[in-house]
Amino acid sequence: MVDAVTLITDFGDYYQGVMKGVILKIAPDARIVDITHNIEPQNIYQGAFLLFNSYRFFPPSVHVAVVDPGVGGNRRAIAVECKSHVFIGPDNGILYPACSEAGIKRIWRIDEEKMFRFASSSTTFHGRDVFAPAAALVFTGKLEEVGEEIDGMHILELFDYSIEKSAIRARIMYVDRFGNAVTNIPGDAVQDAKAFYVNGIEFPLVETYSCVEVGKPLALIGSFNTLELSIRSGSASELFGLKSGEVVLEWRK
Amino acid sequence: MVDAVTLITDFGDYYQGVMKGVILKIAPDARIVDITHNIEPQNIYQGAFLLFNSYRFFPPSVHVAVVDPGVGGNRRAIAVECKSHVFIGPDNGILYPACSEAGIKRIWRIDEEKMFRFASSSTTFHGRDVFAPAAALVFTGKLEEVGEEIDGMHILELFDYSIEKSAIRARIMYVDRFGNAVTNIPGDAVQDAKAFYVNGIEFPLVETYSCVEVGKPLALIGSFNTLELSIRSGSASELFGLKSGEVVLEWRK
Amino acid sequence: MVDAVTLITDFGDYYQGVMKGVILKIAPDARIVDITHNIEPQNIYQGAFLLFNSYRFFPPSVHVAVVDPGVGGNRRAIAVECKSHVFIGPDNGILYPACSEAGIKRIWRIDEEKMFRFASSSTTFHGRDVFAPAAALVFTGKLEEVGEEIDGMHILELFDYSIEKSAIRARIMYVDRFGNAVTNIPGDAVQDAKAFYVNGIEFPLVETYSCVEVGKPLALIGSFNTLELSIRSGSASELFGLKSGEVVLEWRK
Repeated sequence: MVDAVTLITDFGDYYQGVMKGVILKIAPDARIVDITHNIEPQNIYQGAFLLFNSYRFFPPSVHVAVVDPGVGGNRRAIAVECKSHVFIGPDNGILYPACSEAGIKRIWRIDEEKMFRFASSSTTFHGRDVFAPAAALVFTGKLEEVGEEIDGMHILELFDYSIEKSAIRARIMYVDRFGNAVTNIPGDAVQDAKAFYVNGIEFPLVETYSCVEVGKPLALIGSFNTLELSIRSGSASELFGLKSGEVVLEWRK
Repeated sequence: MVDAVTLITDFGDYYQGVMKGVILKIAPDARIVDITHNIEPQNIYQGAFLLFNSYRFFPPSVHVAVVDPGVGGNRRAIAVECKSHVFIGPDNGILYPACSEAGIKRIWRIDEEKMFRFASSSTTFHGRDVFAPAAALVFTGKLEEVGEEIDGMHILELFDYSIEKSAIRARIMYVDRFGNAVTNIPGDAVQDAKAFYVNGIEFPLVETYSCVEVGKPLALIGSFNTLELSIRSGSASELFGLKSGEVVLEWRK
Repeated sequence: MVDAVTLITDFGDYYQGVMKGVILKIAPDARIVDITHNIEPQNIYQGAFLLFNSYRFFPPSVHVAVVDPGVGGNRRAIAVECKSHVFIGPDNGILYPACSEAGIKRIWRIDEEKMFRFASSSTTFHGRDVFAPAAALVFTGKLEEVGEEIDGMHILELFDYSIEKSAIRARIMYVDRFGNAVTNIPGDAVQDAKAFYVNGIEFPLVETYSCVEVGKPLALIGSFNTLELSIRSGSASELFGLKSGEVVLEWRK
């Protein structure tokens, strides 16, 4: 049994409200928690990264993650039963990093036609028509009813960085509201670094924001346990044009 | 009895948090669900459209919809008892399409002075001072205590489009985060169309996004069961300047 | 005992979702209510103002307010037990105005190292690692376990305006989604005013929006019981460049 249903989507607004209605109609006692609905539109990497970094802080839950550029096409909808958690979403890699860490037990292909009977049917809004009913079924203990068991799932690798002597090729996975650019470089991999450089700007590696003056750039191992590029009391993203996607950092130890 | 209290407003932020406090003080067990707080400021049509398209996905609920340019003036505050749902908001048409479909049983004028005793009194924030207490009373089974029964309510027609041989005059009701422009043209009315044209751009009518190449325009009957104008993996709103309000589409069968 | 956990932060997105996981893991029955996560980054005054204006509308609750430019430095994390409510956040003044009105009984310094054992440890995200576990402990009746009792807390004065014969020096505390500029000037202090002037624009003091024509400026005593500068059906903030921070208003009685 699970305690909560969490939601991660790129829907921005409104659509997730409708998903909650569908869930509550089937599972009136479901505790529904919004993690974020502001994944960059169709940025599967970002969805996978934020799901991977949030699920473990929850009690046993059904985690629904919908970033779904292939909706209405032939991508599969899946439910992944792990040791304590269940993950639901399109089979495009978004679920894989979290599932892989959480310990995959069984993978189910969600029967879309069957789910369409609960709320409505569309080719564009499977958050409402497929994933919400499936999550509600799992919450009520009926995981087996979502569809047929299958063998594998789409794989996505979050930590596909490469470290060389003077340069690191990596990704900015998320830019938060403060303008911190969160990379996929694990802290362990760069713990003896002195500083990083992007476009000639130096980001000294420090322990916490207050180690540099207000307005100065810095790098630190942040709350994702990865390298972040920041400005104290300012937006590194805005000032240096950092945004999600591939990035090359120079560095020195 | 109802299972949940839903909220649709144009408050954007913060104010709806205060509304939840007022509701919980009166009805500590209320399950409160945000549908959206990002209705375009004072766009009653949009509020009515999103309420109409969301209420039916919920279990029996009190739906509070507040887009209220006349707040503090002499517009009435109303509660509308329907077969399974109750609707609460200003009597400016926002509730009508949903109520009309849900089956109106009785209409009540909310006594503002009486509601002012629960939380606070203002001429600008009846979400907190009038509608939240009324919703909480309904949740606790005291609908009769919100005020006096009245006879009618303000009418608003969502589907006020006109179809001619080569042109359709209609409305864009909602532009979602992906830049899809959702119209009020029912899918049934245009099911034998081949394509639509706005400012000379062709939007072929297809079944799903993947029927066209990435970056190409398309039209489809979306999750609102109305015509939507889209770009696959792009923003039709941004690229073609589509925004909410009246629109003229040319079309061919 | 408390009925709910409320959250006010400047996190914008995602981070508060993780906080909710941490709270639910410790206190599975916690009712968590978002008040706002859109405090302007690091604007402690705004956080204090919105907390002060919202807490009293809730049933007895734990209110968590995190606007925390000093995170990871040596500022203290505190829990403040008041008559009916408990307040949790950094000791930078954000909690003071609400606590002061709510009736302070005891102040506790939260033991950060102890809290780090519940979820995770970081120098940047004490919302997750310090304040969420502390709030959950309070919800489960274990306030005494958050740390050691201390004597005082950081003071912040919300109503630090000065009124002279022709000019008022004050602050715009909050600009809402409609573009209303909410000041910290109590309504009582200016109730016999006729009009206010900012950059030569006249804002006549009226009772409600409908007292002026659409598109015209006005001033009124709003839902915060303070002076607000507005435009009927328009954005005073956008049109006149009003934003949060210090402001000088001329006025006449």
